[in-house]
Amino acid sequence: MERKILLTDCQDQKGLIAQITNICYKHQLNIIKNNEFVDNDFGRFFMRTELEGHFNDATFLADIDSALPKGANRNLVQAGRKRIVIMVTKEAHALGDILMKQAYGGMDVEIAAVIGNYDALEDLVTKFDIPYHTVSHEGLSRPEHEAKIVELINQYEPNYVVLAKYMRILTPEFVANYPNKIINIHHSFLPAFIGASPYKQAFDRGVKIIGATSHFVNNDLDEGPIITQDVIHVDHSFSAQDMAKAGKDVEKLVLTRALSLVLDEKVFVYGNKTVVFR
Amino acid sequence: MERKILLTDCQDQKGLIAQITNICYKHQLNIIKNNEFVDNDFGRFFMRTELEGHFNDATFLADIDSALPKGANRNLVQAGRKRIVIMVTKEAHALGDILMKQAYGGMDVEIAAVIGNYDALEDLVTKFDIPYHTVSHEGLSRPEHEAKIVELINQYEPNYVVLAKYMRILTPEFVANYPNKIINIHHSFLPAFIGASPYKQAFDRGVKIIGATSHFVNNDLDEGPIITQDVIHVDHSFSAQDMAKAGKDVEKLVLTRALSLVLDEKVFVYGNKTVVFR
Amino acid sequence: MERKILLTDCQDQKGLIAQITNICYKHQLNIIKNNEFVDNDFGRFFMRTELEGHFNDATFLADIDSALPKGANRNLVQAGRKRIVIMVTKEAHALGDILMKQAYGGMDVEIAAVIGNYDALEDLVTKFDIPYHTVSHEGLSRPEHEAKIVELINQYEPNYVVLAKYMRILTPEFVANYPNKIINIHHSFLPAFIGASPYKQAFDRGVKIIGATSHFVNNDLDEGPIITQDVIHVDHSFSAQDMAKAGKDVEKLVLTRALSLVLDEKVFVYGNKTVVFR
Amino acid sequence: MERKILLTDCQDQKGLIAQITNICYKHQLNIIKNNEFVDNDFGRFFMRTELEGHFNDATFLADIDSALPKGANRNLVQAGRKRIVIMVTKEAHALGDILMKQAYGGMDVEIAAVIGNYDALEDLVTKFDIPYHTVSHEGLSRPEHEAKIVELINQYEPNYVVLAKYMRILTPEFVANYPNKIINIHHSFLPAFIGASPYKQAFDRGVKIIGATSHFVNNDLDEGPIITQDVIHVDHSFSAQDMAKAGKDVEKLVLTRALSLVLDEKVFVYGNKTVVFR
Repeated sequence: MERKILLTDCQDQKGLIAQITNICYKHQLNIIKNNEFVDNDFGRFFMRTELEGHFNDATFLADIDSALPKGANRNLVQAGRKRIVIMVTKEAHALGDILMKQAYGGMDVEIAAVIGNYDALEDLVTKFDIPYHTVSHEGLSRPEHEAKIVELINQYEPNYVVLAKYMRILTPEFVANYPNKIINIHHSFLPAFIGASPYKQAFDRGVKIIGATSHFVNNDLDEGPIITQDVIHVDHSFSAQDMAKAGKDVEKLVLTRALSLVLDEKVFVYGNKTVVFR
Repeated sequence: MERKILLTDCQDQKGLIAQITNICYKHQLNIIKNNEFVDNDFGRFFMRTELEGHFNDATFLADIDSALPKGANRNLVQAGRKRIVIMVTKEAHALGDILMKQAYGGMDVEIAAVIGNYDALEDLVTKFDIPYHTVSHEGLSRPEHEAKIVELINQYEPNYVVLAKYMRILTPEFVANYPNKIINIHHSFLPAFIGASPYKQAFDRGVKIIGATSHFVNNDLDEGPIITQDVIHVDHSFSAQDMAKAGKDVEKLVLTRALSLVLDEKVFVYGNKTVVFR
Repeated sequence: MERKILLTDCQDQKGLIAQITNICYKHQLNIIKNNEFVDNDFGRFFMRTELEGHFNDATFLADIDSALPKGANRNLVQAGRKRIVIMVTKEAHALGDILMKQAYGGMDVEIAAVIGNYDALEDLVTKFDIPYHTVSHEGLSRPEHEAKIVELINQYEPNYVVLAKYMRILTPEFVANYPNKIINIHHSFLPAFIGASPYKQAFDRGVKIIGATSHFVNNDLDEGPIITQDVIHVDHSFSAQDMAKAGKDVEKLVLTRALSLVLDEKVFVYGNKTVVFR
Repeated sequence: MERKILLTDCQDQKGLIAQITNICYKHQLNIIKNNEFVDNDFGRFFMRTELEGHFNDATFLADIDSALPKGANRNLVQAGRKRIVIMVTKEAHALGDILMKQAYGGMDVEIAAVIGNYDALEDLVTKFDIPYHTVSHEGLSRPEHEAKIVELINQYEPNYVVLAKYMRILTPEFVANYPNKIINIHHSFLPAFIGASPYKQAFDRGVKIIGATSHFVNNDLDEGPIITQDVIHVDHSFSAQDMAKAGKDVEKLVLTRALSLVLDEKVFVYGNKTVVFR
């Protein structure tokens, strides 16, 4: 008995649920969990079907394909542990929460390696017996620096790249290597406070809530499809530093929640949005 | 073209989604929205299917019944406006929020009448051109009082009875008239602070959060299936009266959220729990 | 015995709390509640002192003034009910929450009048025996329209003007009449989604939280000092209309919370920020 | 220049703020931050005064004492790092969050040692170069087991003892050694679900919110003064295990928030309640 997840994303039409679930039934695959959603504005259908049974992928997918309209995306993925590479700069909190959950329960993931543009977090990562690579950007052009990182990442063949407070801007060329596979945590409730120093911006504006946003990275800075967000309340007694400190707990939880959803294949991307099944 | 909602609730078995959606497809009913859930602890299957098309109820339900296991609950209900009777005592906030939303947008419902054991809210209800009945409990035994209320309620043939801060205990005999049709708002995050004066209890305990719970009423006081809950943070500076005042906003929103979910046929009751589709 | 509130806001210096509280003690005024805050970035001191006793305002304030540095703001205000004028357009929810709380408990305020640029809410306001004035903007230049509103407002001599979803932009000239006296509710968590149709903007961006912001109005659109904010979580299943509907409950609560804080003299404005004591 | 915190807690009377702040002024101590609160139900006054300057503790406290009513509690404590001993069983998340914050920013504390009744977390603690002591309860009576722990704790002379998911009941004799010095995290929003398996209880009751509570430990199980609480929303799709998993993030944050407040001397205990200044 295996467990796999069928992900379907196509133009909406009558009878899709019936046809897909019929095919599952015909192949004697038990539906453990099923979620579907139709975006009526776009006329688009999304379905995530968690299946258990004996799979003949080729014949099953051939049947599925025959039922779907042209241009459909469908994917049958193995349930279970995925592999990630994490990129960091100097802050430990987001990385630390992933390390703790991976090692002591809370997240089923293989952390293949951590890459930092400083060696500040090598000590932490090494405690958890995970390879750490310092790839300094000093003296390198941005393309040169990124080329070294890409080479490292690709050695590990990760399913996803996680930016756990990686504080450098990535070029479109870098991002193009991993379409919808790079997950970032931004320390504001986007679209407020795009760019650098969002807590300083929040302090200057005198806001009463601060937040964090986890999103896929595309070519535009802080503009990718949002996966999850959360906020906390602050007041006049918070300095910009107090906001940054309080915000770290939100950042780390928003990132690990988003990452867990992605690892469980619960997130569809379309246009600049996501469908997130829970 | 009509819109109806098929509610299915039965023992789980393979192929249920396929069979039900097939029957919908065969009857040329378009699935606008579908949600399903399997409670693996109980082996129970729940599905809410919002359908659009030309219905032949008899033949459609005959087909559905033939697909479901014995002991299944299934119901095909008209989408759209339901009728409620509201019961109150002296507090206006929960009632007022329903009145405002019904009259000015936010809740599509017919308020057939409001029944109070005092006349304190007659003035408010009359503003909205809705019948108000004072049924004083003074000088009456509890069964006598309830008999008068039941007689009134039944004249209006409501789909649901809403207790918008009705502060008297109802007998099992009263409740038995409206199984899973009475919706209450309790001013605590149940199961904390069951019974009278929950804000006083919360204050005495020194809690840092207070809340409200909307639930169906069954025979045991504050013990029915929970539909929705919410909380707010408080601190040492809140007196019991401050908690009660702050709590009113939570109470009214929790009640109107729960009521909207029930009116949209999104709530299943089983055992002492609910499945709530969003 | 009277109750008054002393509001002090000045450059910080050693001994301010001691000096001010000494003067209160010397005048036999009992401190019911005291809050103070020093903004270390600006070197600015804020204190709100709720006092009870027999006041000789002239001698008390002379003593206070002698203790404060040059350029200090200080104000001794009567505790208790303030008078407001509310401005609206067509949406009822924010207005309705104020009306309900004023009439049935939750807010101690005198609503002198409601002014709308349409007559859509006359019916609602009249239910509560409060004057409603329709001042249509049609056929009038913006200055002409505002002049008529100002004339009306000034007849009522309100302490504050509340924009309960007044959907027209106000000119700097209008705003200058009521410095730090106009309270607005904006239907987004500012500074995200400034300007028109914030829910549409939020939907298009695919955010997972939406919110509302209450702020004082200054010359720049949606740029005034923020008093309070709150948010709710949404997901992919929310259309822009669903967001707007869910957001209404946040809007009304954020506005009534902010208004209550202002009416209780708990909000200081400095620069583009507020100090809010609770 | 030193920084110290004066904590005053006594029967309320006129002029207390003036007298205390006068004495500070006379001793040329600058008030960095001041918070006070009067519990009108109990007629009790609480004040936390953060001071900077050159302290002569003896003469300063003699002056303070002469100003306070009989039976007053007052304490002058050094600001800055405190020492804790942490007790654990097998779960790593609450411990891990403290370790990470202590080592990489977020909490200024000295973790003198961690004591576990199993060796499950020795590996984790050792990574952070902190002593770990396994004190197995097997084969020992409860008093024998606790005596060994007390002996160990006392060697480290901690300011506080933190129960980071220590899953054994402590005797009144143990607790009496550290009055208002033991901080626990309980995995429910107390007073709901006192005792064992709160997530199982929450699941069985069908609640829609779960939470965590950090409190001082007194003689009665889960009955001590509450410091801070928080909750998250759940729904029918959460198994008891899912609740436990989601709850871990709330538990760890509630505990570290409470601990930070206690370490900053911001928490007063009186009766079964706390005053928490922010």
